[in-house]
Amino acid sequence: MSGTTLDDYTGRYASRVHGMAQSEIRALFSVASRPEVVSLAGGNPYTAALPMDELGEMFTRLLQQDGAAALGYCPGQGSTALREALCGVMDLSGVRASADDLVLTNGAQQGLDLLARTFLDPGDIVLAEGPTYVGALGVFQAAQADVRHLPMDDDGLIPAGLEESLAGLKKEGRQAKFLYTVPTYQNPAGVTLSEERREEILAIAERHGLLIIEDDPYSMISFEGAPPAPLRARVERGVIYLGTVSKIFAAGLRLGWVLAPPAVRDKLLLAVEAAILCPSALIQEAALRFFTEMEWRQQVKVFATLYRDRRDALLAALTDYMPGSMSWTKPGGGLFVWATLPDGLDSKAMLPRALQERVAYVPGTGFYADGNGRSQMRLNFSTQSSESIREGVRRLAGVVAGDIELRDTFAGGSA
Amino acid sequence: MSGTTLDDYTGRYASRVHGMAQSEIRALFSVASRPEVVSLAGGNPYTAALPMDELGEMFTRLLQQDGAAALGYCPGQGSTALREALCGVMDLSGVRASADDLVLTNGAQQGLDLLARTFLDPGDIVLAEGPTYVGALGVFQAAQADVRHLPMDDDGLIPAGLEESLAGLKKEGRQAKFLYTVPTYQNPAGVTLSEERREEILAIAERHGLLIIEDDPYSMISFEGAPPAPLRARVERGVIYLGTVSKIFAAGLRLGWVLAPPAVRDKLLLAVEAAILCPSALIQEAALRFFTEMEWRQQVKVFATLYRDRRDALLAALTDYMPGSMSWTKPGGGLFVWATLPDGLDSKAMLPRALQERVAYVPGTGFYADGNGRSQMRLNFSTQSSESIREGVRRLAGVVAGDIELRDTFAGGSA
Repeated sequence: MSGTTLDDYTGRYASRVHGMAQSEIRALFSVASRPEVVSLAGGNPYTAALPMDELGEMFTRLLQQDGAAALGYCPGQGSTALREALCGVMDLSGVRASADDLVLTNGAQQGLDLLARTFLDPGDIVLAEGPTYVGALGVFQAAQADVRHLPMDDDGLIPAGLEESLAGLKKEGRQAKFLYTVPTYQNPAGVTLSEERREEILAIAERHGLLIIEDDPYSMISFEGAPPAPLRARVERGVIYLGTVSKIFAAGLRLGWVLAPPAVRDKLLLAVEAAILCPSALIQEAALRFFTEMEWRQQVKVFATLYRDRRDALLAALTDYMPGSMSWTKPGGGLFVWATLPDGLDSKAMLPRALQERVAYVPGTGFYADGNGRSQMRLNFSTQSSESIREGVRRLAGVVAGDIELRDTFAGGSA
Repeated sequence: MSGTTLDDYTGRYASRVHGMAQSEIRALFSVASRPEVVSLAGGNPYTAALPMDELGEMFTRLLQQDGAAALGYCPGQGSTALREALCGVMDLSGVRASADDLVLTNGAQQGLDLLARTFLDPGDIVLAEGPTYVGALGVFQAAQADVRHLPMDDDGLIPAGLEESLAGLKKEGRQAKFLYTVPTYQNPAGVTLSEERREEILAIAERHGLLIIEDDPYSMISFEGAPPAPLRARVERGVIYLGTVSKIFAAGLRLGWVLAPPAVRDKLLLAVEAAILCPSALIQEAALRFFTEMEWRQQVKVFATLYRDRRDALLAALTDYMPGSMSWTKPGGGLFVWATLPDGLDSKAMLPRALQERVAYVPGTGFYADGNGRSQMRLNFSTQSSESIREGVRRLAGVVAGDIELRDTFAGGSA
C-alpha cells in the first residue's frame, strides 16, 4: 500500500482482470459525438420518437398507484406480471414460455454476463459468428473464454462452417460450451439466418449436443414482413433465449431477460441476486405499463418505419457515392449495415482521416476476437436523419476515394 | 443434450457455480410477506414516505426536457453531472472526491460484485465483520472467496481482533485481499465503529498494507447527530468507498457508486461495461434531479425521524416484553437491531414457531459464512409502524418464552 505511485494495487488483482481491455467502440464515442461529426458509429435507438408526454403521464400514474413498491427492493426474479407480459411479447414471435422460466436482467448485456458466469471457466471455448456483437465479446473476454468465429454470408451463419468447426474441436478432444448467435438482423452484419439454415443449425446442434444462446434484440424491427421465427420458437430444449426492451421500448431502461430451462434459470437467479439483487423495480413497473397500457406495437411500427426509411437512405447513398469495388449488406431490419472496403484498404487506419472529414463509423476489428475485420466497418442507420446519413456517406466516400488513390500510388506495395 | 431429464446441463457449468446457494433471507421473503405476519425480517426503506406527486412531476419534466437522452444508452462511467452531485452528497460526510473517480453501478450490490471480480481469485481471503451484510456474503461466495469473520462489540469492529487475524494470516504465509466493513449503523448488527477505533483500524491497515472496502449506505440515516466520519474521509489511499441512493432516496432505483483510486476505477469501468453496459440513464437522470431540484436533505430527515420513532418503539417493546436473559443492540441510526437470544435458544429452529405466531425475523446464521449466528436474529424497524412493531415483539416474546420453557423442560440436555 505504501511506497508506490502509479498503481498501488498491482499484484492484488484477480487473474481475470489482466485480460480486460476497453472496446474500440467505447473509445470512439467521445470523438464521434461531437456535433460537427455525422456519426454512423452509434447504436442507439431513435428514442426521440417516443411519446414523452404520454410516458410522463405513465410515470405519474405509476408513482401514485404503485410508488411505494416501485421504489423499494424486489425479488431477484423480478415482477411476475412483467414476466407474464414479456411472455406475451415473445409469443408474437412464436416463442412459447412460462413466466416462471424468465429471469429479468439489467439489459440483455447482463443476461450474457450471467450466462458467461454460469457456463464459462477460463479457457472454455465459445463459438460465435464472425463478426459478432461487441458486447458479447467483452463478456466472453472477461470470462477468459476462447472465442472461435464461424463464417457467415448474406444468409447468416453457414451450417457447413459450424459443422467443420465442431468436427475440428472433436479432433482436438474438446467441446464448445455454447454457440452464441444473433440470427436475426445481426449486429453488426445486418444479415439474417435463413429459414432453411435455422433448421440445419438446430439439427447440427442437436446432433453434437451443442447448447445455443440466441440473442434476439432486433427481430421486431423488421422492414419487409416478419423474419423467420427464432430458434427458440422451433425447439424448447438446447436453446437459451435473450430478450430486451432496448429496441422496442428504450435502451435507457436497461431491462432484458433470459428465457432458460429451469435448471439454468435457478443458477441465473442466484447469479443475478449476487450481482445486483434485482433490476430496478421502478423500471420493471414502467415496462409493464408500456406493454399493458400503451400502444406499444404501434410504437414498434414507428421505430421500424423510421429505420426503414433511413436504411433506404443509407443504401441509396452507398450506391450513389461509393466505388464499385466496395460492397455492403442489405439488412431487412435492425439498425446496422456491414460494409467491406475495396481491397487493400484498412478501416481502422482510415478512421482518423474520416473523423477529420467529420464522419464516423466503427472499424470492423471491434467485432472480432481474433483481429479480423480490418477491411470492414459497421454503419448505423437508426440515429441520424436520412439527410445526415446521405451527407455522412458522401464524406466517407471522399475518404475512401482518397485511400484508394493512396493505395494505387503505392501499388504493388505492402497494403 | 438428449436422454436426460432433470438437468441437461450438469457437467457443463462453470466451476464457480457449484458454490452458489440461495440466501436464507431470500427464501424467507415469501412467507414473511403474508399480510397477517408482522415482518421484522424486511430491509426495505419506507418508500411510502416519498412525495409521489412531486416525483411524478419530476419524471414528467425529465422526459420532456431530456427524454431522448435518458431513454438511450449512456457511457459506462455514467452521467458526469450525477457523479458531481454525488461528490456533493459525500462531501457532507467529509469524503472528498472528484467526479472522475466514481463509477456508477446497479446499486452498491453491483459495486461489491465488480470489486470481487476485480480482486478475488478462488480461495482468496476476505476479512469481514461477524455478522456482516448478507449480500456481501453472496458476492464473496460467488467469487469462491474464503471469508474470515472478525469480532465486533457495541463499538463495532474490535481492532485487536483485526490485528490478531492479520498476524494469524501472516503465520500461514497468506494475505487478505481486503477488509470489507460497514462501519456505520451496520447491517445487521446496528452498531457503529467508534471514533477512536476508526483511527486504530486505519493504522493497522496501513501497517499491514490491508486494502479496506468501506460500505456506507446508512450514515445519513442518523438519529442522534452525525456519526463519526467515514474511513474514506480520513485517508484517501487504501480505502475504496461504496455509496448508494437506496436509503436516502429509493432502493428501487438500483443506483450506487464506487469511489476508487484511478487504477482500480479503470478496472471497474471495464467490468461494469462488460457486465451491464451502464446503469439506466433514466434512473441516473432521476437521481440527478432528486439531488439538484428536490429538497433531498429534508427527505432524508423525514426518513431518519420516522425510523428513529420506530427504533424507539422496537427498543421499548423489547424492554417491555423480552426476558432479562435476552440482549440487543441500540442503533444510533440505520434500519436494524441485532438481538441475542437467551442461552440455548436457536433462532433458526425457532422461526417456524414464530411464523406460526405471525411474526417474522431473520435468523442470525444468514449473516455469517461459517455457520455462526444461531443464537442471534436481525430485527428491522424501517418497514412497519410503531404499533405493528410493538405487536410483533409481543408475539415474538411469546415464542421466546415458549422456547425457554421447552429448554428448561429438557434442562441439562443437549440444547
